[in-house]
Amino acid sequence: MDIQVALQNRRTVRLFQQEPVPDQDLAELLDAARMASCGGNKQCLRYQVIRDRGLAERVFAQTAWAALVQPKRNPQWGSTAPLNFIAVLAPVKGGTVCHADAGAAIQSMQLLAFAKGLGCCWLGAIQRDRLQEILEVPAEMQVLYLLAVGYPAEAPIAEDVPGDASVAYYLDEQQRLHVPKIRRDDLAIWK
Amino acid sequence: MDIQVALQNRRTVRLFQQEPVPDQDLAELLDAARMASCGGNKQCLRYQVIRDRGLAERVFAQTAWAALVQPKRNPQWGSTAPLNFIAVLAPVKGGTVCHADAGAAIQSMQLLAFAKGLGCCWLGAIQRDRLQEILEVPAEMQVLYLLAVGYPAEAPIAEDVPGDASVAYYLDEQQRLHVPKIRRDDLAIWK
Repeated sequence: MDIQVALQNRRTVRLFQQEPVPDQDLAELLDAARMASCGGNKQCLRYQVIRDRGLAERVFAQTAWAALVQPKRNPQWGSTAPLNFIAVLAPVKGGTVCHADAGAAIQSMQLLAFAKGLGCCWLGAIQRDRLQEILEVPAEMQVLYLLAVGYPAEAPIAEDVPGDASVAYYLDEQQRLHVPKIRRDDLAIWK
Repeated sequence: MDIQVALQNRRTVRLFQQEPVPDQDLAELLDAARMASCGGNKQCLRYQVIRDRGLAERVFAQTAWAALVQPKRNPQWGSTAPLNFIAVLAPVKGGTVCHADAGAAIQSMQLLAFAKGLGCCWLGAIQRDRLQEILEVPAEMQVLYLLAVGYPAEAPIAEDVPGDASVAYYLDEQQRLHVPKIRRDDLAIWK
């Protein structure tokens, strides 16, 4: 897929088909993540790839989804929940640079996933203490973010809005998710 | 350009040709940034696009480059320095989510830049207090990162290394930059 197409059309997906993602695709997402920019090339991030169905269910139970349209976009285990997660781990003392690195790595994974016909949801509202136990993460590391990965069962739409408009995403009457994005001229000053 | 090609071959560039980037390309980078994932779709980031040559020189003076190979990869104003910057601004009280958002937005811009034949360097070692004045940033916002953008005058190479090897980038005898990247199997646990 052309990169421009992926950059403009990739959207976050919160409803998934019940088919697991092939290992080869998950491996290629990791390759995208590890080649992303990172501070000082220090590569502070590590990953866990969750494929085991029982473990995925336990991980899923530690996540919160789409606060603005709850409960309508809460995926349900066994029907619309993702079957795969990539946990992004960082040193507990890693600081803000690890969040920046994670953003770059996760965005790279999401773009490639979209090109492969997959969908992702980057999850920050997660029970980190419980995930630490469930995923047996060593004490010096933490689960910074989760990336849910699967075959999409929804197709959200972006729409340009002025800088002073609401950016709250919403469901229309057909239960399709609309995602307001501030137009370019209201985000940038040219000098 | 195919997204997979961009994801694997884009590298950070620190030496630039002395030709400014067309406005249309800079605008498309902003479009890539604004469509990147962000926490809760809140879109906390704002941008300044630096094209004025005098201003670019003042911004450049507030940056530090490639600590591990100094002074050999310090670009020089007027010969190898970038002529354009995109300043990424965030609320002072924005927290770690703004760093994650910035990582995603900057990675998207870098990937598109690479597809356009441009090179970028994401700069975090910057004099934020001075930039606040130079760029006349309102007190409630800060310059979180700078992205240098230009036509590349170097072509760094990535090379896979084991997880226990040094990740320090280095110059070879031909002054080409090598960037060690930890191999996939040493970054991830599969479950």
